[in-house]
Amino acid sequence: MRLDVVTIFPEYLEPLNVSLVGKARARGSLDVRVHDLRQWTYDRHNTVDDTPYGGGPGMVMKTEPWGDALDDVLADGYDSGAHGPALVVPTPSGRPFTQELAVELSARPWLVFTPARYEGIDRRVTDEYATRMPVYEVSIGDYVLAGGEAAVLVVTEAVARLLPGVLGNAESHRDDSFAPGPMANLLEGPVYTKPPTWRGHGIPDVLLSGHHGRIARWRRDEALRRTAANRPDLLERCEASAYDKKDRETLSILGWSPEPGGRFWRRPKAVEE
Amino acid sequence: MRLDVVTIFPEYLEPLNVSLVGKARARGSLDVRVHDLRQWTYDRHNTVDDTPYGGGPGMVMKTEPWGDALDDVLADGYDSGAHGPALVVPTPSGRPFTQELAVELSARPWLVFTPARYEGIDRRVTDEYATRMPVYEVSIGDYVLAGGEAAVLVVTEAVARLLPGVLGNAESHRDDSFAPGPMANLLEGPVYTKPPTWRGHGIPDVLLSGHHGRIARWRRDEALRRTAANRPDLLERCEASAYDKKDRETLSILGWSPEPGGRFWRRPKAVEE
Repeated sequence: MRLDVVTIFPEYLEPLNVSLVGKARARGSLDVRVHDLRQWTYDRHNTVDDTPYGGGPGMVMKTEPWGDALDDVLADGYDSGAHGPALVVPTPSGRPFTQELAVELSARPWLVFTPARYEGIDRRVTDEYATRMPVYEVSIGDYVLAGGEAAVLVVTEAVARLLPGVLGNAESHRDDSFAPGPMANLLEGPVYTKPPTWRGHGIPDVLLSGHHGRIARWRRDEALRRTAANRPDLLERCEASAYDKKDRETLSILGWSPEPGGRFWRRPKAVEE
Repeated sequence: MRLDVVTIFPEYLEPLNVSLVGKARARGSLDVRVHDLRQWTYDRHNTVDDTPYGGGPGMVMKTEPWGDALDDVLADGYDSGAHGPALVVPTPSGRPFTQELAVELSARPWLVFTPARYEGIDRRVTDEYATRMPVYEVSIGDYVLAGGEAAVLVVTEAVARLLPGVLGNAESHRDDSFAPGPMANLLEGPVYTKPPTWRGHGIPDVLLSGHHGRIARWRRDEALRRTAANRPDLLERCEASAYDKKDRETLSILGWSPEPGGRFWRRPKAVEE
């Protein structure tokens, strides 16, 4: 997979040399190229921004440097077919970046990232390239960053770890939070390793029982518990039929009950107390 | 504000020297200290992980290096009162990191980040420190990363830009997506700057009208449009009373209508077509 990043802070992308992404580059699974947007400015101040039309605070990134930069980056290897590029535009106004979208992006051969600063990039840049390639405007979460570079690191890492051969033995997809399968929509519960006692804290007995069924059940109950506490929205999203009898008992103890429509809802406080 | 980060990839935190966070450090608004967890290992392989109790794939980060590292980091300046530290644990099992939580964290004097790798840190570490200080287990979004370091960059940047005096003139909080106020729960619409025509793309006439009221209305309609397209969940979260008459007209054109309960819901497809 090829990744290009155009940015006014190339040094922010240093983590792409480290750890999993760095190793994938060293092995040749990833071809990462970071470009300084200011290479495509021609005035003495290397201007990339100007005041917004219509007034208001903040600055807007100009069309010309972005257009010239993207033309040059895309010209080197451009293919309008199956090997063609897709643009990934990090913006708080985008669609949410999810594990599902990470899987979709990991199947593409070439991603070009355009992390912006200030109030964002002049809209005409995405309008222009959207006529030639898929454009993914993505938001990594409901918070405001100083620029899109941190989002590029997040998306790159989430995508890179899904590429064949990138994850080592010490890591695994199977039990990931948000992975498809039996743990879909459930957060992972607590994990423990040696020693059995540390500063007076033991570990749950069941984990030493050697009984696989009981361990699996305990893990699932812990996952249900943590999801109910931190992400009730995920439980509400599930059909009741996704839960087995023991799941329902655990959820019921946590104050959740099925409703006639076939979904779970948190039991109203008034009924509970 | 003081920030400590304990990690096995200190070089991943290089972006904390760049841009907004880098400048805030240079000015003294932020005191950032990055620590290598392996300093607190005492075997020849600098082991930080071991197999999980109860079996299963992946490795779990051990209690001892984390406990020893946190003890040393916290001992230097520890205060159990108003100047005391809080632990920020990035994990996909945490509560969602939001702009509201960024504001909460920005009011704290000292944050200690514990980005993990592999399947996460032995649960007893957070159990232990939770007896002494607030612990924030946060998830920056519904995707899986290779480790918590990218999340530390995200949280740090979202928090740092809220500190007094950190944002320059070129940037502004007022119209941020997710900021409280009239644009709360709406995504920002498109922005434009000079030139008025670029590669055949013009800009919306209203932005050249000089009519502040019409420009504000256009921006709000664009924000409603983008929010309906990319984040219907945000519109559904709003009370109908949050929208004025013109908002409701725009939403109605987009296929949204108020329901008796006082909230907006997307109009069902069957009714629409």
